[in-house]
Amino acid sequence: MQASLDHLRVVLVAPRNPLNIGAAARALSNFGAAELRVVNPYEVAFRDAKSAVGASPVLAACKEFGTVAEAVADCAVVVGTTAIGHRQLQQPVKRLVQGARSIRARLLRSPVAVLFGSEKWGLSNDSLSHCHWVLHIPTREEHQSMNLGQAVAVCLYELVRAEGRRATAPTPEPLRWEKPASVGVVERIATTLLAVLHSSEYINPKTGQLAEEKLRRMIRRMTFHEADAEVFLGMLHKIAWKLQQEKEKR
Amino acid sequence: MQASLDHLRVVLVAPRNPLNIGAAARALSNFGAAELRVVNPYEVAFRDAKSAVGASPVLAACKEFGTVAEAVADCAVVVGTTAIGHRQLQQPVKRLVQGARSIRARLLRSPVAVLFGSEKWGLSNDSLSHCHWVLHIPTREEHQSMNLGQAVAVCLYELVRAEGRRATAPTPEPLRWEKPASVGVVERIATTLLAVLHSSEYINPKTGQLAEEKLRRMIRRMTFHEADAEVFLGMLHKIAWKLQQEKEKR
Repeated sequence: MQASLDHLRVVLVAPRNPLNIGAAARALSNFGAAELRVVNPYEVAFRDAKSAVGASPVLAACKEFGTVAEAVADCAVVVGTTAIGHRQLQQPVKRLVQGARSIRARLLRSPVAVLFGSEKWGLSNDSLSHCHWVLHIPTREEHQSMNLGQAVAVCLYELVRAEGRRATAPTPEPLRWEKPASVGVVERIATTLLAVLHSSEYINPKTGQLAEEKLRRMIRRMTFHEADAEVFLGMLHKIAWKLQQEKEKR
Repeated sequence: MQASLDHLRVVLVAPRNPLNIGAAARALSNFGAAELRVVNPYEVAFRDAKSAVGASPVLAACKEFGTVAEAVADCAVVVGTTAIGHRQLQQPVKRLVQGARSIRARLLRSPVAVLFGSEKWGLSNDSLSHCHWVLHIPTREEHQSMNLGQAVAVCLYELVRAEGRRATAPTPEPLRWEKPASVGVVERIATTLLAVLHSSEYINPKTGQLAEEKLRRMIRRMTFHEADAEVFLGMLHKIAWKLQQEKEKR
């Protein structure tokens, strides 16, 4: 039933509580998702969670990453989660029912990452800048913030729930430029474009950090296809090279 | 939205872990249910949960009962929950989606109790004998048993989820960058990018025509949003200007 959750990567960013890491892993196992990843966890918590009695195979296989970019590099779509209302979001927000439908459709052909923030602060703006859109669990306005393990369980339940209702029509193989580009290539586009924008003085060094986050969000919204992304990256490399060459000539 | 959950009573039978009691209370608060009850809890656990930092008003109001019969005395319907398959059930079993629909219909006119068993053994046959029917969360056969706090969260989410579908919440106005860019702006992006690609020698003048057509098709596939298209066009203008300026310096 949940075969398509094979492509799902649940990513915990900076989790601090071993019980929450364990609870998240258990929810993955309950609902048939295999890949849990952690980014920059509180080391003691991660070690405790892994060594806990009854730790699941999901937890044993859990991979640790230093940055969000590395953790989602093989994914075509990156989805954030948030207790909405705490900040102005720059990304589109989807309610869980609609968002889960969209994730399921994507999972049929490419890996999707769903990010959960730390217990205390949720996802930072920097982490959110890697997300194509943001998932919102419809909680009560007076008490929106959910426990991490419970939030993971509710999201996975919703992904599996409607899965059962889905028709089993085979999906045709997508054309090469219909396949979404992997996040790794898109990140390289962002990095190269950023370099070009510095060389061409579009970006003011003083406001560089803000520009970088904005740029990354914009690139995420541009939905590149696989073949196009490579062509575009090639163009940017050539432009970067030319600007560098002209500079050296002076 | 969740007014009908006023009639819901979530009953934890013999819970042993204060963190689970706290997590269950938090889920009630998240999803707008007010009444948590415990039957015969492990005393230390109940005391610890109540005195925990940040314990919710739900937990403060949580009532303790000596038996299941007393805890559900004011309810018209009593529903059990179980990790099915561990025993032969005497009661009808409903999957969560169908069961939640039936509970919601009842809540419109009378109190309904939903029972959750202890972390280790679930609901005993004695506790189940008080239930009209049993709710089953569709977990994976190889790992059915859910964490108590997560099971409560998933059940409450499902009760609230379909509730929300009936409400006629207005759809938010799309943000400016959710609107697609006009064809005119996209064409200017193509033209400017083309100029940049000529200046940077990405395009060979001999094969220019073909490159131009390919480029235009690629830009069309990139699905720009209104605000992003203008920002991107601004970037390209700056890059084109810089390349031109460098050329003139020579």
